[in-house]
Amino acid sequence: MVQNKSVIFLKHPVEYPVPGEHFAVETKELDVDLKPNDVLVRNLFISLDPYMRGKMRDTTKSYTASFVIGEPLNGGGVSEVIESKNDSFPVGTIVTGTVGWEQYSVVPGAQGLRAILNARDSKVPLSVYIGVLGMPGMTAYSSLKIIGKPKAGETIFISAASGAVGQLVGQMSKQLGLRVIGSAGSDEKVEYLLKELKFDAAFNYKKGNILKELQAAAPKGIDIYYENVGGETLEAALEVMNNHGRVIACGMISVYNTPNPYGVRNLFHIVSKRITMRGFIVSDFADECGADFAKDVGSWLMNGEIVYKEDIAVGIENAPDAFVGMLKGKNFGKQVVKIADL
Amino acid sequence: MVQNKSVIFLKHPVEYPVPGEHFAVETKELDVDLKPNDVLVRNLFISLDPYMRGKMRDTTKSYTASFVIGEPLNGGGVSEVIESKNDSFPVGTIVTGTVGWEQYSVVPGAQGLRAILNARDSKVPLSVYIGVLGMPGMTAYSSLKIIGKPKAGETIFISAASGAVGQLVGQMSKQLGLRVIGSAGSDEKVEYLLKELKFDAAFNYKKGNILKELQAAAPKGIDIYYENVGGETLEAALEVMNNHGRVIACGMISVYNTPNPYGVRNLFHIVSKRITMRGFIVSDFADECGADFAKDVGSWLMNGEIVYKEDIAVGIENAPDAFVGMLKGKNFGKQVVKIADL
Repeated sequence: MVQNKSVIFLKHPVEYPVPGEHFAVETKELDVDLKPNDVLVRNLFISLDPYMRGKMRDTTKSYTASFVIGEPLNGGGVSEVIESKNDSFPVGTIVTGTVGWEQYSVVPGAQGLRAILNARDSKVPLSVYIGVLGMPGMTAYSSLKIIGKPKAGETIFISAASGAVGQLVGQMSKQLGLRVIGSAGSDEKVEYLLKELKFDAAFNYKKGNILKELQAAAPKGIDIYYENVGGETLEAALEVMNNHGRVIACGMISVYNTPNPYGVRNLFHIVSKRITMRGFIVSDFADECGADFAKDVGSWLMNGEIVYKEDIAVGIENAPDAFVGMLKGKNFGKQVVKIADL
Repeated sequence: MVQNKSVIFLKHPVEYPVPGEHFAVETKELDVDLKPNDVLVRNLFISLDPYMRGKMRDTTKSYTASFVIGEPLNGGGVSEVIESKNDSFPVGTIVTGTVGWEQYSVVPGAQGLRAILNARDSKVPLSVYIGVLGMPGMTAYSSLKIIGKPKAGETIFISAASGAVGQLVGQMSKQLGLRVIGSAGSDEKVEYLLKELKFDAAFNYKKGNILKELQAAAPKGIDIYYENVGGETLEAALEVMNNHGRVIACGMISVYNTPNPYGVRNLFHIVSKRITMRGFIVSDFADECGADFAKDVGSWLMNGEIVYKEDIAVGIENAPDAFVGMLKGKNFGKQVVKIADL
């Protein structure tokens, strides 16, 4: 009998989730009884993303439904169909969509799955479909375009700039003719931003004063702030922002794991500088941006105009530690878990 | 020789401005030498507005230029042209536009002045042109429409709801089919909101807990928050806001007069609830909204569907106390100063 190792959600965390307490690895026998249109997939890669911390909160008003206690966590994945009652997804199809943090998932009605064409001949690792060509890529591209309204010559500041979304926003912004400033949590990441991603300026937010670093990096102020962290960094960005600035509120990872978040004291700049700050989830923009995304990002990637760094944990049993590490900024690049080879 | 009494700006305040220290009444001889296209006006009413506190800050990045030390404060007024070198504004014309806090102002090139037609036969007090038919009215109308995007059946919460802008936003929202909740700083104001302005719910923010009061008043949450105060009230509004909520950031009077503003800790709701928060100044929307404003608000006012409360100080020498009183919420309705009879 086949065993299925999975990561089960046990309890809503208030601070950082703790492996063993809030989620734990369990192994059960795989016992599958597919109904019409269902598929069974073998998961190859799963994506670990900061937004998932929001789904661990005990609230009915977060992004979408919270994770269910006693069930596996879930998120984006790349998988192989190994049993199928769905003609659109025959056995052997490589798909991307939402799956459990587990080795094998049943996807009822194949809901939300998308086949990856020519996947077996792919020149790029399949994890790209949960990265630059998947949700993080679409997140970066659509929100930059729709909320950021970037104009060549403007300045953008990106926090968590070496992360899954930040690294893409920065490179896309360079393509669009912006001056690009990034913050990150280690000197190694800062060097990566400057040397590999060709940012115009970057600083380590853990060293020195965030506001002073940002002021020095942005002598003409900033027009767009790509917000991934919240707290003091947001406060500094508002301070340095120009009139009619835009804040793309993608995430606020600094406040997800504490019951006492930092209080932002200078929101009056939103009034006096006529700033727009907007939150979103990627599906809000799928209709408006989907076609342009595939065209632009696909070609940037093919031409080497966008590079993409991943931090790959190996084995589903390492997903909990990798997730907590990502929340603490220990990852370097997009965090994924490789569960199996194709 | 005619004397001109005026209120001169002396010093940038950090906390509440103090009459005598930050601004003071002075009297000088009126000595006028008009150049071509200039006009001399006798001021009848001037408008006192919270945004003026922002122009007292020593900053180059506020709304527009700050007030100039040693010069009269200025703002919206209704005035009579008493000397003119401008054919468009002959002597006797009643105008509205930006004038000094003083009895007589020279308006170089008559810049920004607009003639009020049939003003001498007006059935409404001329102060309406710095109120519901002037900047506060346009502020309320345009921002509610453009940022608020109100849909019938939605719920709006308005802070400083009996103030110049708040009272109009509330009544306009009722006209547009919204459920309307307001907060204000006294039981008398709350009663006015409920009885006279027909708000659906209202509470005194100085009594009890703002969040609990708002939760009780908005069992289905709020879709739009009309922000005039900032701080704890903003925090409560974000807490109670529904997905895709809009925050119209008109002002944050609670933080204007303190060097240690309240820190807002729950901005992650902007991410998770996909909220848009946007600041503006009224001139941003003049082109888009001007014609509709005149039509809609003019007819609502004529039909008695909108009423309008003013708090009138009499005499330019009383402007400083009235201004500080308004910043402290002592006014009840739109604060104006009556300087002279027509």
